[in-house]
Amino acid sequence: MEPITGRALVLAASAIGAGLAMIAGIGPGIGQGYAAGKGAEGVGRQPEAQADIVRTMLLGAAVAETTGIYGLIIALILLFANPLINLL
Amino acid sequence: MEPITGRALVLAASAIGAGLAMIAGIGPGIGQGYAAGKGAEGVGRQPEAQADIVRTMLLGAAVAETTGIYGLIIALILLFANPLINLL
Amino acid sequence: MEPITGRALVLAASAIGAGLAMIAGIGPGIGQGYAAGKGAEGVGRQPEAQADIVRTMLLGAAVAETTGIYGLIIALILLFANPLINLL
Amino acid sequence: MEPITGRALVLAASAIGAGLAMIAGIGPGIGQGYAAGKGAEGVGRQPEAQADIVRTMLLGAAVAETTGIYGLIIALILLFANPLINLL
Amino acid sequence: MEPITGRALVLAASAIGAGLAMIAGIGPGIGQGYAAGKGAEGVGRQPEAQADIVRTMLLGAAVAETTGIYGLIIALILLFANPLINLL
Amino acid sequence: MEPITGRALVLAASAIGAGLAMIAGIGPGIGQGYAAGKGAEGVGRQPEAQADIVRTMLLGAAVAETTGIYGLIIALILLFANPLINLL
Amino acid sequence: MEPITGRALVLAASAIGAGLAMIAGIGPGIGQGYAAGKGAEGVGRQPEAQADIVRTMLLGAAVAETTGIYGLIIALILLFANPLINLL
Amino acid sequence: MEPITGRALVLAASAIGAGLAMIAGIGPGIGQGYAAGKGAEGVGRQPEAQADIVRTMLLGAAVAETTGIYGLIIALILLFANPLINLL
Amino acid sequence: MEPITGRALVLAASAIGAGLAMIAGIGPGIGQGYAAGKGAEGVGRQPEAQADIVRTMLLGAAVAETTGIYGLIIALILLFANPLINLL
Amino acid sequence: MEPITGRALVLAASAIGAGLAMIAGIGPGIGQGYAAGKGAEGVGRQPEAQADIVRTMLLGAAVAETTGIYGLIIALILLFANPLINLL
Amino acid sequence: MEPITGRALVLAASAIGAGLAMIAGIGPGIGQGYAAGKGAEGVGRQPEAQADIVRTMLLGAAVAETTGIYGLIIALILLFANPLINLL
Amino acid sequence: MEPITGRALVLAASAIGAGLAMIAGIGPGIGQGYAAGKGAEGVGRQPEAQADIVRTMLLGAAVAETTGIYGLIIALILLFANPLINLL
Amino acid sequence: MEPITGRALVLAASAIGAGLAMIAGIGPGIGQGYAAGKGAEGVGRQPEAQADIVRTMLLGAAVAETTGIYGLIIALILLFANPLINLL
Amino acid sequence: MEPITGRALVLAASAIGAGLAMIAGIGPGIGQGYAAGKGAEGVGRQPEAQADIVRTMLLGAAVAETTGIYGLIIALILLFANPLINLL
Repeated sequence: MEPITGRALVLAASAIGAGLAMIAGIGPGIGQGYAAGKGAEGVGRQPEAQADIVRTMLLGAAVAETTGIYGLIIALILLFANPLINLL
Repeated sequence: MEPITGRALVLAASAIGAGLAMIAGIGPGIGQGYAAGKGAEGVGRQPEAQADIVRTMLLGAAVAETTGIYGLIIALILLFANPLINLL
Repeated sequence: MEPITGRALVLAASAIGAGLAMIAGIGPGIGQGYAAGKGAEGVGRQPEAQADIVRTMLLGAAVAETTGIYGLIIALILLFANPLINLL
Repeated sequence: MEPITGRALVLAASAIGAGLAMIAGIGPGIGQGYAAGKGAEGVGRQPEAQADIVRTMLLGAAVAETTGIYGLIIALILLFANPLINLL
Repeated sequence: MEPITGRALVLAASAIGAGLAMIAGIGPGIGQGYAAGKGAEGVGRQPEAQADIVRTMLLGAAVAETTGIYGLIIALILLFANPLINLL
Repeated sequence: MEPITGRALVLAASAIGAGLAMIAGIGPGIGQGYAAGKGAEGVGRQPEAQADIVRTMLLGAAVAETTGIYGLIIALILLFANPLINLL
Repeated sequence: MEPITGRALVLAASAIGAGLAMIAGIGPGIGQGYAAGKGAEGVGRQPEAQADIVRTMLLGAAVAETTGIYGLIIALILLFANPLINLL
Repeated sequence: MEPITGRALVLAASAIGAGLAMIAGIGPGIGQGYAAGKGAEGVGRQPEAQADIVRTMLLGAAVAETTGIYGLIIALILLFANPLINLL
Repeated sequence: MEPITGRALVLAASAIGAGLAMIAGIGPGIGQGYAAGKGAEGVGRQPEAQADIVRTMLLGAAVAETTGIYGLIIALILLFANPLINLL
Repeated sequence: MEPITGRALVLAASAIGAGLAMIAGIGPGIGQGYAAGKGAEGVGRQPEAQADIVRTMLLGAAVAETTGIYGLIIALILLFANPLINLL
Repeated sequence: MEPITGRALVLAASAIGAGLAMIAGIGPGIGQGYAAGKGAEGVGRQPEAQADIVRTMLLGAAVAETTGIYGLIIALILLFANPLINLL
Repeated sequence: MEPITGRALVLAASAIGAGLAMIAGIGPGIGQGYAAGKGAEGVGRQPEAQADIVRTMLLGAAVAETTGIYGLIIALILLFANPLINLL
Repeated sequence: MEPITGRALVLAASAIGAGLAMIAGIGPGIGQGYAAGKGAEGVGRQPEAQADIVRTMLLGAAVAETTGIYGLIIALILLFANPLINLL
Repeated sequence: MEPITGRALVLAASAIGAGLAMIAGIGPGIGQGYAAGKGAEGVGRQPEAQADIVRTMLLGAAVAETTGIYGLIIALILLFANPLINLL
């Protein structure tokens, strides 16, 4: 039907870009796993401090989550609210 | 039948992008495995705290899971609900 | 017979994408192996806690498995239920 | 409709550039996760100092967040306020 | 005889994809080797717990094996039951 | 409308260059996270020295921030005050 | 004689794919070497447990071998029983 | 308007080169963060030596900053005082 | 004499593939060297156990050798018994 | 105006080369940061030796600076005293 | 004289492949150096066991050498006994 | 003026090659920084041995400098005394 | 004078291949440096065993040198005794 | 003047190859720096053994230098005594 257009080039690049953006998830995955391990280790040593340890671990992990979420946001924007295509 | 169209280019890029997005899974895999090891170590040392350790480990690992799930979501969107193709 | 079509381009990209998605398995492989080592170490030190250690190790490893499974799912979808080809 | 134009090239490059910018998130993800683990460890050892530890951890993590946010900002600019396209 | 067809492109991509999928084996190789070393170390220290240590090590290694097997499965599918070629 | 011009090439390269510049953020992210973890650890051990520890941590992290900011500056210049386009 | 055909493209890709598949051998090589070192260390410390240590080490290393063998299998299939060429 | 000229090629390469130069910032980011963490740790242990520790940390970090600044300088030269374009 | 044929393409790819396959040797090289170091260390500490340590070290290293040999086998097959060329 | 000339190719390659040369700055950045951290740690432990520690740290860091300066020199030569363009 | 022929392509690929095969030497270089360091350390601690330590070290290093030799063999075959060229 | 000539190709490759050669500076930068840190640490512990420590550190760092200087030499030769251009 | 011939392609690939082969030198460089550091450390602790330590260190380093020499040999062959060119 | 000839291609590849060969310098740089740090540390602890430590350190570093020198030799040959150009 239609030949390869600039529109297609932008959308193809958006798909690749969305995939690249998700790679950022490697970081939080490693970091939060480290936090989980340290948390489990701590709870085993001081079970009476479990609530505090878990709260701290989750608080810290929530912050570490952010850059992963940023990647997700950019990928979702590229897919569902692609503003670039309106500039064409 | 049909020649290479812009539609095909976008879909091909979506397949590559879905593969790239899954690479994010390296992070949670390493991190959660660290948590699992620390959890098993902790349970061995304080068997009486097993429930607490496991709960903490799973809670932390669940958070670490998120960026892997983000990658899965983006890949699934690229494959099943590809919004880019509607923009063409 | 048929020349290179857009259909072929999408399918070729799907094969590459499936291969890329499997690379995510590096993460769980390292992480679960760490957990297995820590588990074996722990069992050696506290044989009486073996059941608890193994259960914790397997629970943690099962969570770490998930991102590897995600990659498998995406690869299987790309191969057997390739939704992209229907969009062409 | 339209053939591949310079406009399309700039927009496609913007999509790739936005994806590249998000990769910076690997750093804060690892770093903040380390902070979360150290924080949880510290709270387990000195529960009475929890407020101080958490405040310090969050303060440090907030600083570590910045480069991830920079990447998000650049990606958002590339997508929503793309100034390059006005220069064309 | 036949010129380069789309069929050939898909099959060539399948061969590359099968090779990429095997790279996932780096992870389990490192992880299981770590487990083997820890197991041997543990057996040396507590020979009386050998059966338990080995069982735990093998159990953990079996889980770590999975992502390597996933890669093998995808590669075998790409080679022997290539579903993509039927979609052409 | 317009074909691919040198102007478009420069602007496309600027978008890629801005994305590359942000990758520098991996460094400060890891480094500042290490500082945050060490700071939280130190506050837990010497709560009475909290003000000093936090001040030192923030001072050091502020210096570590600089190269991330350099990347942001270059990216912003490439996007908003692109001097290259005036040289064309 | 014959020009570049699709057949040649598939076979060339198979040769590259076989080479890529062998790279998986980096993992078992590192892992089993770690196991060998830990085994030798353990035998030096508890010579009386040598049989048990060696058995455990070999058992663990045999499991770690698998992903390397998977890569070998895929490479051999690509070379000697190339099923892709029959699909052409 | 104008077609792709050598001028455009040089300017596009300058934009990419500026982005590459900023990647050097990964090094100082990690190194200075390490210094910040060690400084905070030291202040916590010897609060009375705070002034000396901070001065040393900042002095060392200032030296570590240099290569990041070199990258910034080269990027700024490429953007604002591009001497290459005068050689064309 | 003859132009570039499919035969030449397959053989050229075989040469590259043979080179790639040898890269797997990085793994056994590192791993066996670790084993050698641990073995030498152990012999120094327990000279009376030398025979046992060396035997264990060599046994473990022999297993670690395998993936390097696999790579050699595949390379030799690609060079001397290239089965792909018969499929052309 | 002018088409793409060899002159432009050389200058474009110089811009890329200048960017590559700056990447060397990763090394001194990490190394000097390590020195700064060790220096701060040492000053905290032996405040009376501060002058000596700082002098040693700066001396060592000055040597580590050299390769970063080499990169800067080459980049500056490529930009401001490009001798290649005279050879054209 | 002669134009680019398939013969030339195969030989060029052989030269690249020989270079790639040598990269495997990174592994034995690191591993054997580790063994050398551990051997020297051990000799310093137990000079009376020097002969045993050195013999063990050399034995282990000889095994680690193999994958480097494999790479050399493949490279030499590609250069001096290139069997691929006879298949053309 | 002049079209792209072989002369231009050689000079462009020289510029890239000079940039690549500088990357070697990452090694001495890390290594000398480690030496600087160890030297500062040592001076703090044995201030009376400062002269000896510094002399040793500088001697060792001077040797480590060499490969960085080699890279600088090659880059300078490529830029200022380019012998390749005389062979054209 | 002469156009790009197959001869030129083979020689150009030989130059690149020679450069790739030298990269193997990273391994022995790191490994032998580790051995040198351990040797210097050992001599400092047991000066009376200097001769033995140095002999062991040099012996081990000589073995580690081999893969670097292999790379040199292949590079020299590619440059001075290029057998590929005779096959053309 | 002259068009792109095979001569130019070989020389351009030589320039790139010379740059690649220098990258080997990363290894000796890191390794010798480690040796320098260990040497300085040792001199601080046993100043009376300074001569022995330095001699050992330099001896070891001289061996580690070799692969960096190999790279330099190959690069110099490629630049000043390029034997490939005579084969053209």
